[in-house]
Amino acid sequence: MSTAGIVVVGNEILSGKVADSNSTYLCRELRALGVDVERISVIPDAIDVIANEVRAQSAAYDFVFTSGGVGPTHDDLTLDGVAKAFGEPLVLNDGLAARMQRAQGTPPNESQLKMARIPAGAVLLDSGDLWFPVVVVKNVHVFPGIPLLLQRKFESVKERFRGIPFRLRRVYLTRRESDIADVLNAVLADFPDVQMGSYPRTGREDYYVMVTLESRDEDYLQRSLDVLLERLPEGSIQRVE
Amino acid sequence: MSTAGIVVVGNEILSGKVADSNSTYLCRELRALGVDVERISVIPDAIDVIANEVRAQSAAYDFVFTSGGVGPTHDDLTLDGVAKAFGEPLVLNDGLAARMQRAQGTPPNESQLKMARIPAGAVLLDSGDLWFPVVVVKNVHVFPGIPLLLQRKFESVKERFRGIPFRLRRVYLTRRESDIADVLNAVLADFPDVQMGSYPRTGREDYYVMVTLESRDEDYLQRSLDVLLERLPEGSIQRVE
Repeated sequence: MSTAGIVVVGNEILSGKVADSNSTYLCRELRALGVDVERISVIPDAIDVIANEVRAQSAAYDFVFTSGGVGPTHDDLTLDGVAKAFGEPLVLNDGLAARMQRAQGTPPNESQLKMARIPAGAVLLDSGDLWFPVVVVKNVHVFPGIPLLLQRKFESVKERFRGIPFRLRRVYLTRRESDIADVLNAVLADFPDVQMGSYPRTGREDYYVMVTLESRDEDYLQRSLDVLLERLPEGSIQRVE
Repeated sequence: MSTAGIVVVGNEILSGKVADSNSTYLCRELRALGVDVERISVIPDAIDVIANEVRAQSAAYDFVFTSGGVGPTHDDLTLDGVAKAFGEPLVLNDGLAARMQRAQGTPPNESQLKMARIPAGAVLLDSGDLWFPVVVVKNVHVFPGIPLLLQRKFESVKERFRGIPFRLRRVYLTRRESDIADVLNAVLADFPDVQMGSYPRTGREDYYVMVTLESRDEDYLQRSLDVLLERLPEGSIQRVE
């Protein structure tokens, strides 16, 4: 069972100008692959903050994914931060510079060359149909912030992260959370290894509470579901998925 | 100029079942109030993780806002975590329990009473039209995870956080980021106190790059904008907002 952390870099998110959708995408994809995301940190475009966060997450989790801060402008500092996290210098990667030239037909200018300066010792994961690779430093995987590009790059490398995926059941209920909390606690006492969530509706959904049960063990999951359904108050179950 | 951190608590977000919209809302609102959000941390429903994150953010920023984990079920552990962050016990607040009773007409059950157990020394901020107050422990403000409730509670207390707001200008350009990076860097060298952002389009927008300039000083902002517009390549400006 592997774990992951996500570092989202960008003043535009902290200042409310742009909503981050990359962490939502990565959480959903990683869950489906069987990887537990244990933290998302959204931090500013500041080298030391990036370096400290990357270093801490790299030590705490099996995989770290960064999003954003890899373009050609002054506020693109993720590679600088990752390099500093591990005490490595940034070095111009000639292969990357050559690929830029092939991709656009003209030599890269100084701003573009910034994107070809990567931490010493980085590994380039090259797959998919985009000209640029995923830069990997130790267990840290550097992704672009543009959602479509991040998704295409992640798709192209995601099989490396696959573990044993979680199985999920959802039970939709017509009672309030506080009316069923005791039942949930009792089921959890009998099935301590099931992951249980309880989510009151947030809008106009046709249920009051969605209860989720998750486990990597299909049989254990089914038994916990059977016991839950048996113990819930009569008439409180709207549907099970 | 005050600073803030946001702690979003919830396994449902880390496992990709639910997208967090509360941090986006808070970032936008706090920016408009003149508060700099410096970090968003999304963490699991785990008392020690919550306690450590809340303690660290409380020491680092002027205000901390938590979202989620305050309902009646087993996985609602935010108040436990905030209490532990400051070494305070959870104590039943009789006033809160009495309000629950008034709000629903019957005495609260054991699951509901869980929501009336708050850290010793907490201050209750009471305004707006919802029966429950905002629980404040030192500089930590505890909000519910349901977006509509969080927004209504935040609206009711937000004037306490008002500082000097940022002014924002947006310049939309028809050139690629790498073609204008040198101009941006030069303007930033002349106006080091302006906050400049550069955002390549992410979809089908009708521009290539949006450049943002921000400052709390309207005059300084306008001068930096004038210089930027003057230095950009002819014909590259699509519009200014």
